[in-house]
Amino acid sequence: MDERKRLRSLIALLMAALFVIWGGTALAASHEEGEDASQFTSENIEGEEEGPRLEVLEGFVSPGIITDSMLLNAGKDPNNWILYGKDYAHTRYSQLDEINTETVKNLVPKWVLSFGSLDSQGSQTIAFNGSLFVSASHNHFFRVDGRTGRTVWRYDHPLPGDVAPHLCCDVINRGPALYGDKAYVATLDGHLVSLDAASGQVVWDQTVADYKSSYSFTLMPLALDGKIIIGTSGAEFGIRGFITALDAETGEEVWKTHTIPAPGEPGGDTWPGDTYKYGGGSAWVTGAYDPELNNIYWGVGQPGPWDRHAHPGDNLYTNSTVVMDPDSGAIKFHFQYTPNDPYDYDGVNETILADIDGQKVWLHADRNGHFYSIDRTNGSFNYAVPLGKITWNRGFDPETGRPIFAYPEMDVTRDKVTEGIYPGLFGGKEWNPMAYNPHTQIAYVPAFGDHSMDLQSKVEKYTRGELYLGIKVMKFFGGGGELRAIDARNGELIWVHNNPMPFRSSVITTAGNLVFAGDTEGYIKAFNATTGAQLWSFNCGTAVMGGVNTFTVDGRQVLAVVAGQAGTAIETGLDKNWPKTHQKGGYLIAFELH
Amino acid sequence: MDERKRLRSLIALLMAALFVIWGGTALAASHEEGEDASQFTSENIEGEEEGPRLEVLEGFVSPGIITDSMLLNAGKDPNNWILYGKDYAHTRYSQLDEINTETVKNLVPKWVLSFGSLDSQGSQTIAFNGSLFVSASHNHFFRVDGRTGRTVWRYDHPLPGDVAPHLCCDVINRGPALYGDKAYVATLDGHLVSLDAASGQVVWDQTVADYKSSYSFTLMPLALDGKIIIGTSGAEFGIRGFITALDAETGEEVWKTHTIPAPGEPGGDTWPGDTYKYGGGSAWVTGAYDPELNNIYWGVGQPGPWDRHAHPGDNLYTNSTVVMDPDSGAIKFHFQYTPNDPYDYDGVNETILADIDGQKVWLHADRNGHFYSIDRTNGSFNYAVPLGKITWNRGFDPETGRPIFAYPEMDVTRDKVTEGIYPGLFGGKEWNPMAYNPHTQIAYVPAFGDHSMDLQSKVEKYTRGELYLGIKVMKFFGGGGELRAIDARNGELIWVHNNPMPFRSSVITTAGNLVFAGDTEGYIKAFNATTGAQLWSFNCGTAVMGGVNTFTVDGRQVLAVVAGQAGTAIETGLDKNWPKTHQKGGYLIAFELH
Repeated sequence: MDERKRLRSLIALLMAALFVIWGGTALAASHEEGEDASQFTSENIEGEEEGPRLEVLEGFVSPGIITDSMLLNAGKDPNNWILYGKDYAHTRYSQLDEINTETVKNLVPKWVLSFGSLDSQGSQTIAFNGSLFVSASHNHFFRVDGRTGRTVWRYDHPLPGDVAPHLCCDVINRGPALYGDKAYVATLDGHLVSLDAASGQVVWDQTVADYKSSYSFTLMPLALDGKIIIGTSGAEFGIRGFITALDAETGEEVWKTHTIPAPGEPGGDTWPGDTYKYGGGSAWVTGAYDPELNNIYWGVGQPGPWDRHAHPGDNLYTNSTVVMDPDSGAIKFHFQYTPNDPYDYDGVNETILADIDGQKVWLHADRNGHFYSIDRTNGSFNYAVPLGKITWNRGFDPETGRPIFAYPEMDVTRDKVTEGIYPGLFGGKEWNPMAYNPHTQIAYVPAFGDHSMDLQSKVEKYTRGELYLGIKVMKFFGGGGELRAIDARNGELIWVHNNPMPFRSSVITTAGNLVFAGDTEGYIKAFNATTGAQLWSFNCGTAVMGGVNTFTVDGRQVLAVVAGQAGTAIETGLDKNWPKTHQKGGYLIAFELH
Repeated sequence: MDERKRLRSLIALLMAALFVIWGGTALAASHEEGEDASQFTSENIEGEEEGPRLEVLEGFVSPGIITDSMLLNAGKDPNNWILYGKDYAHTRYSQLDEINTETVKNLVPKWVLSFGSLDSQGSQTIAFNGSLFVSASHNHFFRVDGRTGRTVWRYDHPLPGDVAPHLCCDVINRGPALYGDKAYVATLDGHLVSLDAASGQVVWDQTVADYKSSYSFTLMPLALDGKIIIGTSGAEFGIRGFITALDAETGEEVWKTHTIPAPGEPGGDTWPGDTYKYGGGSAWVTGAYDPELNNIYWGVGQPGPWDRHAHPGDNLYTNSTVVMDPDSGAIKFHFQYTPNDPYDYDGVNETILADIDGQKVWLHADRNGHFYSIDRTNGSFNYAVPLGKITWNRGFDPETGRPIFAYPEMDVTRDKVTEGIYPGLFGGKEWNPMAYNPHTQIAYVPAFGDHSMDLQSKVEKYTRGELYLGIKVMKFFGGGGELRAIDARNGELIWVHNNPMPFRSSVITTAGNLVFAGDTEGYIKAFNATTGAQLWSFNCGTAVMGGVNTFTVDGRQVLAVVAGQAGTAIETGLDKNWPKTHQKGGYLIAFELH
């Protein structure tokens, strides 16, 4: 906008001419004298400073060292939250109970931290010994003092001007990972960066993917046994997705596994011709890990383009959970939720590893509108139950779990608009992770109310770096939100909380018998985990679509909530009848009992 | 940035193609069907929708009618805050005492509202019958439900791309005024807009000043006896400042008074040649009103250019408070703080009308580093006391209050850099208003710690719409903040609270014996009004540089705090050694006792 340019010019003029040294403050490095001023002339205007920026507030005290043992036992440590899903099993279950069904009414904000950017907030706080690590849109990364909310350091990753935002979620980042004495951040321009956790200084910065072909990283990396594992975003742009492990010390590649196999590789026969080259299959939700089986479980997204008739076949490993050897990256087995998906039922959603009646399973709530239990030792199908109204399939093969498509009625073709496809592409459940209490074996699923879409596909030609969707018409209908408590043993619904707006934050559950979830209007809410009764809410003033989690700071339980809308859906005003007067935001709110 | 353009393209693509109707929600208007979709082709990309936008959440219930009597008695109504300075005298004193020295420890956020914009937040909430009216940077205006923080309506004033931000304070707005059943907003592109307070619909939109010559409006308008009175910003761009009154019903001009007189007018002889045409004299702090004397008291800023040698003479009415007849706009008398100012000691700061020992005075803390008491019946000088270290003058003429400049040592010339000018141009006190308790006769002044600047002037040629400062070198030193309690009877210091960061919010004081002030690090703090002891603080996570005020909602006392940095000083990173890791922000936090 011209207005912004004008402002930048003014600012640049001042920057070029003024040297302000406000010394004598508690926070600032002391300066005795101002620097030399340059000539203050209107001609002497230079552009705003660009490039990497690191601002450090106070001290370089290490938050401590994250060991493999700590990661393996993260679920048993109530005080810290050091993995994306709390533990490698991704339960999002916290043993803390200071905040509980009795006390939650006294939960109030302790401090707020502004991120200084808007657009798309999907980060989750990592908490370790009272230090918090969090990210904001546009690849800003922070270390924060959990006691005060003051920023210890901020790392602004330099982004090229032509970087492509992740279509689903805009310029999002889901948070930094901690490992050893480092923080690891995966960036929109395809880098993995190792930062000194104490100071925020860059240790190494490795280019992993070609952002000019619209590869990007938006996930929180997975730290595991000396490696940092990440998966790519960008399936809307005709990428060929992959998951890769880098050496945590050096940044060198340890392995790289494409989610879309080439001809001759297992599954390569599910892609005709050279369609695999643009076959999509993003992998932007952090995987789970079973140390006993030595398996990682990683979701893979939809095929590219969405027009399924462009690539007949099952299109492995799209819309699947792949089970990999973390040492080699080899795919051991998989389960595919929606073969040859025409609906953008992006299977990238998380897996939760649960042990149920002696069986090792993974739980997965898919965009295709079903909640699954899968045997995690071999990928065999236990059950799938619907999360709401479904029209695209007529059930499942009871042996294989393969869906029985409601074709031809519900097929998406190039010839006509297919109407009334339930659920719409936001899915029965969107990407934001659910929670699971291993003691009660109840999963808490942030689901949508019944909603549908109309679709028509079209022929689309691949152009490097450009959108590659093969969609001519999309319309969305319906809405609202639900929080569903599901008995993981059999998929039965225990309770459901209907909400005006969808719950789009991560969900957590705690030993305080609470479930926390945030909605797109901006409310963070607490529910009785047993009954579903709403016990508390707070209006954060902008959609809560990022991480919600809990840990202790100075012995007190803290609830951390990332506030700010995420994703193109709201960003665009596409759903302007939804949180109608909603504003963008970007801040972290730390709550504590008063 | 290219990145943003890319994003916009993506968004536009989606906007052009997708029609999302999320019906069936509590908040949204219900739609039965989606609208027709346009062709979804990559070629069919249109730009983001621009122009005025009004989003309405819920209902069109009027907040009530603001009458002249209500404005005249606003100081006696503890429940509402309907004028910029609480009352026409601008005391910023609230009679509320639910939040007091005992209870303030239980003050916690009740809700947060994101503004959806960053850059420069200087607004103050107007509260009326539980409805809040507030603005954000970039001329976004809101009506908010005070109980929940939910937006009732948002009006986004359409700004031309080449509008010039107010140099001091960036794309700021200090809030909407209420009068009758309307809200009045003064805009960066020189408009005054009347909105239906209930619905946010535009009633009229009057062009008042030429933004292409860099006139702009940033202040909260003053509603008075059927008129809406506003003053211009833009003295850095060689404007000729003015104050004008418009008919509240029709938007027609009632009067317009230049703050810079032309030859032949009173004071016109203080400007040589045609220098008056570019003489500056902004008037962007809302004036006070004395109904008994029927005077308005309005601050006028620095001359243009800052190079005083370009316009020898006193340069009336720059750096003055002018006293005007609100019916005609005629200037009855004035008091000038810094004649022929070379220091940018912008005299625009507010006046507080106080009755002290039978004398009607105005109180004013000036950028030039002094706290003044002036007889408001005739403009005669009572006293001026320094707010910190001063080097630019050697006292005052005891009769006239005219400063005795420390020339030639402290003059600013084109020949050399003048060093060690105390205070720097942020002043002894910046524009953010102080508070005054009429019962104790104590003023609470947000002051800076001792700080200085080095300056050198230069010849500058006027070009329409461009910066016109006449400054070659500026450097700043020192810093920190102070909150000063001053006995208004004699200017004596009662207590001072030293703070790492300057207090840059408006200051208020209450019958709860409290003083509230926000600093540039982000802390809102409460002090014992008698002793200065700090009793409470909350880290808002971004500078608190806008309005702080208090009122009731549903019978409970609420403290409203606008959070978000304001102004080019921080915006530019000029003072990056100051709140070093500070992030921009933009939200309103409503606090209440838990």
